[in-house]
Amino acid sequence: MKQLQSIKWEDGKLTIIDQLLLPLETNYIQITSVEEGWDTIHKMQVRGAPAIAIVGCLSLAVELSKKEYQDKEELFGTICTKLDYLVTARPTAVNMKNAVVELKKYVLKLHTDSKVSTQDMVTRTCGWCERFLENDIDNNKKLSDFGAKSVLAAADGVDKVCLLTHCNTGSLATAGYGTALGVVRSLHSAGKLEHIYCTETRPYNQGSRLTTYEIMCEIMPGTLVCDSTVAALMAHKKIHAVLVGADRVAANGDTANKIGTYQLAVVAKHFSVPFYVCAPTTSIDFTLPAGCHIPIEERPNDEMTCVAGKRLACPGISCWNPAFDVTPADLITGGVVTEVGVFKPSELIQKLNTNDTF
Amino acid sequence: MKQLQSIKWEDGKLTIIDQLLLPLETNYIQITSVEEGWDTIHKMQVRGAPAIAIVGCLSLAVELSKKEYQDKEELFGTICTKLDYLVTARPTAVNMKNAVVELKKYVLKLHTDSKVSTQDMVTRTCGWCERFLENDIDNNKKLSDFGAKSVLAAADGVDKVCLLTHCNTGSLATAGYGTALGVVRSLHSAGKLEHIYCTETRPYNQGSRLTTYEIMCEIMPGTLVCDSTVAALMAHKKIHAVLVGADRVAANGDTANKIGTYQLAVVAKHFSVPFYVCAPTTSIDFTLPAGCHIPIEERPNDEMTCVAGKRLACPGISCWNPAFDVTPADLITGGVVTEVGVFKPSELIQKLNTNDTF
Repeated sequence: MKQLQSIKWEDGKLTIIDQLLLPLETNYIQITSVEEGWDTIHKMQVRGAPAIAIVGCLSLAVELSKKEYQDKEELFGTICTKLDYLVTARPTAVNMKNAVVELKKYVLKLHTDSKVSTQDMVTRTCGWCERFLENDIDNNKKLSDFGAKSVLAAADGVDKVCLLTHCNTGSLATAGYGTALGVVRSLHSAGKLEHIYCTETRPYNQGSRLTTYEIMCEIMPGTLVCDSTVAALMAHKKIHAVLVGADRVAANGDTANKIGTYQLAVVAKHFSVPFYVCAPTTSIDFTLPAGCHIPIEERPNDEMTCVAGKRLACPGISCWNPAFDVTPADLITGGVVTEVGVFKPSELIQKLNTNDTF
Repeated sequence: MKQLQSIKWEDGKLTIIDQLLLPLETNYIQITSVEEGWDTIHKMQVRGAPAIAIVGCLSLAVELSKKEYQDKEELFGTICTKLDYLVTARPTAVNMKNAVVELKKYVLKLHTDSKVSTQDMVTRTCGWCERFLENDIDNNKKLSDFGAKSVLAAADGVDKVCLLTHCNTGSLATAGYGTALGVVRSLHSAGKLEHIYCTETRPYNQGSRLTTYEIMCEIMPGTLVCDSTVAALMAHKKIHAVLVGADRVAANGDTANKIGTYQLAVVAKHFSVPFYVCAPTTSIDFTLPAGCHIPIEERPNDEMTCVAGKRLACPGISCWNPAFDVTPADLITGGVVTEVGVFKPSELIQKLNTNDTF
């Protein structure tokens, strides 16, 4: 299979893979407005916290380049309104929120700088969004190399490691390399991957649909397991580390991530398997002291009761379908892997809480 | 909805609900031979260790009543061959194996008793199979009442309890009342059930398809959750006990049950939630000293990669799909609930290892 490019940005045109159709159909959608960007995020045609932020910002770049603005005042107002709207598409993901804060700061500077024309302001705002895409790939690669080193160091000198991951945190969740799956990719490139197990990740099956697709694309030695199989897996086979992504990390290290992450962390602790959260520093929200402050999105029942359009569960049954759970920091025994290093959850505030991380 | 009858035995006719079509279609299949009984067990049109044994034995009763036998020698040989064949349909389930041992003993007695004619031997063998069905319902009710008392006693005097169960262990898994779900049913009848949560139970979705059907039939207050949601559930809502069934319990209390049971037990221990295995004494195999001796059936990949006939996972991905896992006895903190009482796993050998349990 060819190298996967999930977000394409060429000559001011934004196209993305429709992830709802994977792994059986590879279909690119063009995004021509913020409204369409919001829709693709909300419908989960694009998912993964970093990818959401990138597609959101690039949808703004597309929209800005198409229109003419009377003056900087109108342009500034438009940008702020559109950015606030984009945050509402998936409220749990902090990357979009962080990107909006940074981009607003940048745009405010352009707005108040009398040497910057309206057209300059459009061009430079679009440039910021493009760099955001490029930075994400660079940061993922740095993060992945730090994670790979840490996993190998913790694996007591074995030559190759067996890993477990949850959900999808690869090229399809980011601009193009991945976080937790980036670490796996990095180990695979270095000839250090014995095996990667991935969970199905009910109810949306991102592991089954997307991670298996990436594993097959890169010809990694990989196996799919049910979410409930992890205790049996750890009892029967040596797993050296569990690697997951994050939608939002609180200042104390508590981590909101795809539902099921908490359970994996409990099971990993039971079997003394190091548990790593792989998240760019942009996913860390220092305004939240602890995980209990993270709002958890609840998704519709039919995500659970129907699979591939067919109903499985008895009509009328009530469902509890939280999109995320919050893993307490003390279960993140391996550490939090970022583009600037691997940290214990308790070290995050001291070592990373500056305004220079983006 | 009307009261559910999953196995019907009327005038020597055996019909069962095709569980593969539930919850959307209620279709009864007639079983007219041992061969057809084996098929329905192997294809999982009937599942649950007790139900498998009952359908297996009744399929023998159907077949015996249809044919004429030259002499007792031929009849005895036929019965033994058919019984050995039935055990191979789902090798992990011990109930069929235990039933076969008992029935063979009984038939051998008839065979060596010169006062018993060939026709008598047919009639009395069929009678044994019928009583097997009736005993199962009686035993389930006794088991359920013992379990209900134990759960309430452990719940610190609350008036109503919130419970979690896995897979399907109700009317659809037994002759008609249930084991773990029987305990839930007993608590519900007594007005002591606040809420029952059931897991989807991937990959075969017995919770999603069958337990939700039983919950809706009985109008219990119930909610479906993904297998991976249990840690989040226990963190957010008070769960008083986890109740699961068993395919086979070893002499030391280690328990083979539907894949995912082990993981639930680990999570329950982390949250100090009592964990109960509900199993008639016929599911306890005293010939196995510990769980490591229980053979684990591995099921085909497409049970995981396809749902409702539609492919979810990327073609070519490898899968690990064990049908069961073995929960170590020390995680069974609530106890093993049987028709003769609730026991600590360590008490089973001393208190139950007699030949009088069936």
